[in-house]
Amino acid sequence: MKASKYNINTLKEVPADADIISHQLMIRAGFIRKVASGIYNWLPIGLRVLHKVENIIRQEMNAAGALEVTMPVVQPAELWQESGRWSQYDEGMLLKFKDRHQRDFCLGPTHEEIITDVAKTELRSHKQLPVNFYQIQTKFRDETRPRFGVLRAREFIMKDAYSFHLDQESLEGTYQLMHDTYAKILNKMRLKFRAVDADSGSIGGNASMEFHVLADSGEDKIAFSTESSYAANIEMAEAKAPANEKTVMQSLQKIATPNAKTIEEVSKYLNIPMSRLIKTLVVKGKNVPFVALALRGDHQLNTLKAEKISEISKPLTMATEKEVFSVCGASIGSIGIVRLDLPIIADRSAAAVRNFVCGANENDFHLANANWERDTKYNAVYDLRNIEEGDPSPDGVGQIKFKRGIEVGHIFQLGKKYSEKMNAKVLDEKGASRVMTMGCYGMGVSRLVGAIIEQHHDENGIVWPTIIAPFHIVIIPINSHKSDQVTQVTQDIYTQLIANDIEVLLDDREGYRPGVKFMDSELLGIPFRLVIGERGLTENIVELTSRRSGEIQKLPLKSATQKIMEFLKVSLGS
Amino acid sequence: MKASKYNINTLKEVPADADIISHQLMIRAGFIRKVASGIYNWLPIGLRVLHKVENIIRQEMNAAGALEVTMPVVQPAELWQESGRWSQYDEGMLLKFKDRHQRDFCLGPTHEEIITDVAKTELRSHKQLPVNFYQIQTKFRDETRPRFGVLRAREFIMKDAYSFHLDQESLEGTYQLMHDTYAKILNKMRLKFRAVDADSGSIGGNASMEFHVLADSGEDKIAFSTESSYAANIEMAEAKAPANEKTVMQSLQKIATPNAKTIEEVSKYLNIPMSRLIKTLVVKGKNVPFVALALRGDHQLNTLKAEKISEISKPLTMATEKEVFSVCGASIGSIGIVRLDLPIIADRSAAAVRNFVCGANENDFHLANANWERDTKYNAVYDLRNIEEGDPSPDGVGQIKFKRGIEVGHIFQLGKKYSEKMNAKVLDEKGASRVMTMGCYGMGVSRLVGAIIEQHHDENGIVWPTIIAPFHIVIIPINSHKSDQVTQVTQDIYTQLIANDIEVLLDDREGYRPGVKFMDSELLGIPFRLVIGERGLTENIVELTSRRSGEIQKLPLKSATQKIMEFLKVSLGS
Repeated sequence: MKASKYNINTLKEVPADADIISHQLMIRAGFIRKVASGIYNWLPIGLRVLHKVENIIRQEMNAAGALEVTMPVVQPAELWQESGRWSQYDEGMLLKFKDRHQRDFCLGPTHEEIITDVAKTELRSHKQLPVNFYQIQTKFRDETRPRFGVLRAREFIMKDAYSFHLDQESLEGTYQLMHDTYAKILNKMRLKFRAVDADSGSIGGNASMEFHVLADSGEDKIAFSTESSYAANIEMAEAKAPANEKTVMQSLQKIATPNAKTIEEVSKYLNIPMSRLIKTLVVKGKNVPFVALALRGDHQLNTLKAEKISEISKPLTMATEKEVFSVCGASIGSIGIVRLDLPIIADRSAAAVRNFVCGANENDFHLANANWERDTKYNAVYDLRNIEEGDPSPDGVGQIKFKRGIEVGHIFQLGKKYSEKMNAKVLDEKGASRVMTMGCYGMGVSRLVGAIIEQHHDENGIVWPTIIAPFHIVIIPINSHKSDQVTQVTQDIYTQLIANDIEVLLDDREGYRPGVKFMDSELLGIPFRLVIGERGLTENIVELTSRRSGEIQKLPLKSATQKIMEFLKVSLGS
Repeated sequence: MKASKYNINTLKEVPADADIISHQLMIRAGFIRKVASGIYNWLPIGLRVLHKVENIIRQEMNAAGALEVTMPVVQPAELWQESGRWSQYDEGMLLKFKDRHQRDFCLGPTHEEIITDVAKTELRSHKQLPVNFYQIQTKFRDETRPRFGVLRAREFIMKDAYSFHLDQESLEGTYQLMHDTYAKILNKMRLKFRAVDADSGSIGGNASMEFHVLADSGEDKIAFSTESSYAANIEMAEAKAPANEKTVMQSLQKIATPNAKTIEEVSKYLNIPMSRLIKTLVVKGKNVPFVALALRGDHQLNTLKAEKISEISKPLTMATEKEVFSVCGASIGSIGIVRLDLPIIADRSAAAVRNFVCGANENDFHLANANWERDTKYNAVYDLRNIEEGDPSPDGVGQIKFKRGIEVGHIFQLGKKYSEKMNAKVLDEKGASRVMTMGCYGMGVSRLVGAIIEQHHDENGIVWPTIIAPFHIVIIPINSHKSDQVTQVTQDIYTQLIANDIEVLLDDREGYRPGVKFMDSELLGIPFRLVIGERGLTENIVELTSRRSGEIQKLPLKSATQKIMEFLKVSLGS
């Protein structure tokens, strides 16, 4: 490809609304352009990268025996009503509209309903199972706050797969296969990633794992063990019960704490660490109006864990100031678990503390040296809190550390959530009708392009892994308009490389200084740069620079094409 | 691919809502499934065909130097308001909706606005021109009456390209290149087609051509010359002026025509051919309230032609019964051009008639032997009617015949319609700012799949051109469960063909009789069928059948793979 015939539009300025490096570089390198909030055009050079990502995914999905289909972007409401998600899906993420006949439709953010409807009519017998359908397709989620370019866009490209099984065992086999396939795909793309235990959210099901590309800019926190392979979404990581404290119980004291209302204020006022305080959160109960949750002052409530407790109403709802006062007889900053007429659920860590401080249920007073065994009691103990760095790893090996990640994949054991509601059955070996068991497997295709850049860049621009790069090599001739020899050698090498299926960009743009072309080639992230100049040619050499290492090799003109192909072979990992 | 692992779901019954053969066969062969009116799923085997069509188009567009981009499905209203099409586009074909922030968006039925906005920011200098951007992308048109499966769907896949130029000459070059590229694409797909002069419709511009795949089921009529290469959309074909009749004028007569109101009734009542009648149509004028149009009784008004006449208001609007009565003093069935107080525009053919019959502007009366020269006069003569079979060809060579076609492509010289409104300019050689000239080039990708089937089928199913077929060859082993030799030979040939990049479907489905597999292979349209049976193997032969010719070849086992590859090479045209 000749750059003069290609639409290369690099920018020097960092765009104002681009907060993170991948977004900045994708705009500066001319890969994408914003059309509206969270909606982008992919320009030619960006689309080349997107297609490479798509093709790696397609290859590996095909190798895993999945069958590619295409489902529509526009979906009829009826199917979403059948599954029950029309009214509940993600509070408005579903973009709904009416067609000219006033029928309800939505833009598909995911395709469980459509594929279950396909399975219901196309799959009749257990002999057709297991089967795994996938598509690579444009999706739309009406995000409240689209940001970070393609990392959190409204219109995006996703690979979504849906598998159908006669039983759980078969589902687990395909789930594992997809797990391994995702690992292969991300390894091919040279990504550092972790597969972590995750919550199934609005998709539903029994078990799920997220695939996170590690990056400081990631929106998600992942909890790792320092010493084992344990990794989980921070929301999912179990906080183990610590040993109960054994210190001697001291006498309960009532202390005036004027104007100290928050945990920080009380801890400061009393000059004790926050971990010695027990805070009380009043939430709505399922069978009783309110339930009190007790957590250590330095810990955070984990909503997901709380919502799984049967005594607590879902979605988790905090009592209002007014409700708290009428139930506890004090304002929120002064309530506590001693002499409280509410069922109390204690977090494991809170339950282990002795001689703690808590609100006195009397404004501007706290109690010191309170103890569960003597002054109050809990109705139940649960893991209620977020895990923290330094906590023991849930698998018992090592301590917890946090890293940030970009979620690029999520695999689910759906079970029968959709197939039961939509009545998707097959005949089993005995001729009996059985509801199918399902899995689903998503991967963010356009998001991966951004995630790769987050891991592969330096101060001069993108540093593509060769397998993903828009071009393998850029040729920059120096002053070819003044030298017939440079023109001739450039043309020869260009033609030879193309004949060998090498993806070459020849930077033949007129009126650009070599320095500008060098900077562009680094911004665009092309793995190899070949400079052909008169000075080198007098010694019969051309210069090859690696984008990643910066290493420059002087190649003898005679063997240049051959050498380049050898380097590329290594670099492509083939 | 093994059929047992593939989702092959053929149907015997013709689906109730499928009127034409391509729709019936696509459903029966399991290529597509309906999700909602005009919205389809593409199942695995159908998607293989769709991808082949896409790839042929992509290859040829790339070969023509066009640059692939991807623009969004969801488009913001602002750009459509800038071009003025938000309120006018196709009366409701544009599906509009609001996002969660109550901003207006639409589903893109076409992308002139988006690409012009891209060009406006990305193209600065004439040095970047000409450039031709294209995409292969999902589009949505909210058709009133979606029908014929993928031929008139609401959600569909289209290739749309948009070129930018400094001047008309450059546009004409790319327009011709796209014309030739379309011809190459359709020839590669083994389609009989015609490129015809066409109207530019809601897209706009100066000149346009449609590409029609010839098929009796086509929705469009095309006018051809019997003797020249002339072809045009029937709406666009010029009806030449015939020579004026020279018969002697006879005396005007007033004739009672009780209950004869329509042209057919009057012609029957008076026992004269409809061509001797002149009908009068009263329409709204641009500068006067009404204008009368005069056409021969056997001719049909062409709205497109009428709307191009400056005296006539656009859109063409017929006068109501009441308005006609108040202007002519008679009901619609009895009005005529003699003693009529309206400007009269005569069609060329109507203007050539002598001694004609027309309404008397008095209910239940007509005039006979009326003549332009003596009894009335026209203000202007235009080509106002649809061309008819038997008319002379507009290029003067041969006569007009009609054929039916499926429009699969439409190329436009847009000119400056969008670039002027959206202010898309570049600097020319002299540094002056100039509005760019544009072309646009559409091709119906999913529609092509249906169009190919319309031309390539027989009573047993689809007969794919090999280059488009979902698989090149199907292997059907006979009773392999009873014969180790059949199993072994099948496995050997299957492996050898795959190793040679042949796309093979091995029909290993258990519990299906060979007859059913034969029927399926014909319905699916796979170009070659290889039957491996014990009887043949005793003679060391396998049987290859051509789907198109039905010819059976007995291939010696030894050279079978080699022979098959040779046949395929010829069949693929490579």
